[in-house]
Amino acid sequence: MSSEEDKITRISIEPEKQSLLDHHTEKHFTAGEIVRDIIIGVSDGLTVPFALAAGLSGANASSSIVLTAGIAEVAAGAISMGLGGYLAAKSEADHYAREMKREQEEIVAVPETEAAEVAEILAQYGIEPHEYSPVVNALRKNPQAWLDFMMRFELGLEKPDPKRALQSAFTIAIAYVLGGFVPLFPYMFIPQALDAVVASVVITLLALFIFGYGKGHFTGSKPFRSAFETAFIGAIASAAAFCLAKVVQH
Amino acid sequence: MSSEEDKITRISIEPEKQSLLDHHTEKHFTAGEIVRDIIIGVSDGLTVPFALAAGLSGANASSSIVLTAGIAEVAAGAISMGLGGYLAAKSEADHYAREMKREQEEIVAVPETEAAEVAEILAQYGIEPHEYSPVVNALRKNPQAWLDFMMRFELGLEKPDPKRALQSAFTIAIAYVLGGFVPLFPYMFIPQALDAVVASVVITLLALFIFGYGKGHFTGSKPFRSAFETAFIGAIASAAAFCLAKVVQH
Repeated sequence: MSSEEDKITRISIEPEKQSLLDHHTEKHFTAGEIVRDIIIGVSDGLTVPFALAAGLSGANASSSIVLTAGIAEVAAGAISMGLGGYLAAKSEADHYAREMKREQEEIVAVPETEAAEVAEILAQYGIEPHEYSPVVNALRKNPQAWLDFMMRFELGLEKPDPKRALQSAFTIAIAYVLGGFVPLFPYMFIPQALDAVVASVVITLLALFIFGYGKGHFTGSKPFRSAFETAFIGAIASAAAFCLAKVVQH
Repeated sequence: MSSEEDKITRISIEPEKQSLLDHHTEKHFTAGEIVRDIIIGVSDGLTVPFALAAGLSGANASSSIVLTAGIAEVAAGAISMGLGGYLAAKSEADHYAREMKREQEEIVAVPETEAAEVAEILAQYGIEPHEYSPVVNALRKNPQAWLDFMMRFELGLEKPDPKRALQSAFTIAIAYVLGGFVPLFPYMFIPQALDAVVASVVITLLALFIFGYGKGHFTGSKPFRSAFETAFIGAIASAAAFCLAKVVQH
């Protein structure tokens, strides 16, 4: 919303309606983008290194090998998710800029078609031509507002914040590293992997449960259900890794 | 858009405008959701198992250990991303349903406030009260259309397709597995990991380059730039894994 506010002078709405907006706060939940990135990073960070370590332990590797593999995987995963997320965000920003340029050109070159598109958007909501025509004409007189309207309501694109790409990358990468160290921690102190794995399983399933609960709380889902689902994914992933590792080792 | 079309009878727009829409095709790029999921799965699948295998090879593990770790990681990663993605999509569907229920209640309980919100949305585009009032009144007479309008234009939420959650999960998981097997393939036939890693590096950097090119093509970015970026992430991730594995092994 803020991009439109930046670009367009707010025309005051009728005072009676404005007071209704001031006095009635609607509580719609919106998870912060940073919380979302932390959830993305920790979800995979807690799960994959845990399962890898458990699988290798079951295949009789030493704690030393498990740690080597685990730390290598955490580094690789953090870089892949972090850098990958950064490039994806930059790509979305480029996409937005390209689409905006194209809309801008079309507003100048084929205004009748663009006006027809505005009409089509509003007509979907049962609004008749004589009701939406003043709106279409008002937009036609204000090219910047028209452009923003098309970006938002025809293409459904929000203007991306340039700082977000870097912030998102670091958040996900750091969250992945922090998540990944939880299951690997016991292997740093217990040389027998088959002993360390017991501690790792206990610590990590607990961490997954707590994290899942927090995730449910922040996203507005049932926290306990989220806790069990998150721990369940970790259990399934590690069971699969465990079995496959034994198969590969014969 | 299709959700609104499902729910609301399309009112015909003026014939002159309709013909303009028919004859002028706008080419706005939209990457399919399936393509997006394949990109997500293959991106991480090509990168992380590759880096893990390269790291372990550099730390003098045998091809057998590398394969064990690699296959365990691919299984764990596919499950974490697939199941995680599935639950995230279900969570979004629940979120949409909750928000829609809340909007529906507000339309009944505090229609003046909801009408004021419609006015506020349109006022942001420089549309005056006398121009948007007919639209607001038209929506007030059509509660289903009003609800869809608020979901789309106030909350910016699209109705999620229930099939998508499962489809997305399988696509990402399978893409991750297929991506992961590319770098692990040489280790199945070359028992010395330090020999296998050479083949793995060549095959995987090539695969990353080609995949990055395709990704750029599908997302409308510069394909060669995307190719280099994607291969670069793989190179960085494997270099980091290689160095850290050596450090852990002393």
